[in-house]
Amino acid sequence: MAFAKVYVTLKEGISDPQGLTILRALKSLGYDEVEDLRVGKYMELKISGDDPEAISERVKEMSERLLANPIIEDYRVEVEE
Amino acid sequence: MAFAKVYVTLKEGISDPQGLTILRALKSLGYDEVEDLRVGKYMELKISGDDPEAISERVKEMSERLLANPIIEDYRVEVEE
Repeated sequence: MAFAKVYVTLKEGISDPQGLTILRALKSLGYDEVEDLRVGKYMELKISGDDPEAISERVKEMSERLLANPIIEDYRVEVEE
Repeated sequence: MAFAKVYVTLKEGISDPQGLTILRALKSLGYDEVEDLRVGKYMELKISGDDPEAISERVKEMSERLLANPIIEDYRVEVEE
């Protein structure tokens, strides 16, 4: 049994209206020190198997095919046993 | 200047229909080894200031007030200089 974490973020240069909305809300609450905010997705997967490298490869494949949109998003995979 | 990362996840026991939908889609693509999947949010903040502890406290306050819903979500804050 292993746990994989997948972090999906928008590529640089891709506009992030959700992040901009949250940034404005923070400023309206007085958090003027926040200069930028970007929103991403975070997924935790519970996976059967015990070869971290093989699992990492499979999760990268899942990310390319389904979990992320590689045209506009970057992703990062971490596997913990 | 510092960077803060905020990870927001649903508390245990709170149902995650988005995660369930992705889990089913993965299984339909043949990824039968995935036993569970939970979806969270991930935010990257660019913040002025240079005291990591003070920044961390402020970001935790932002999380309580706006970035997370503490009733159904947990959050974790990391600050990098």
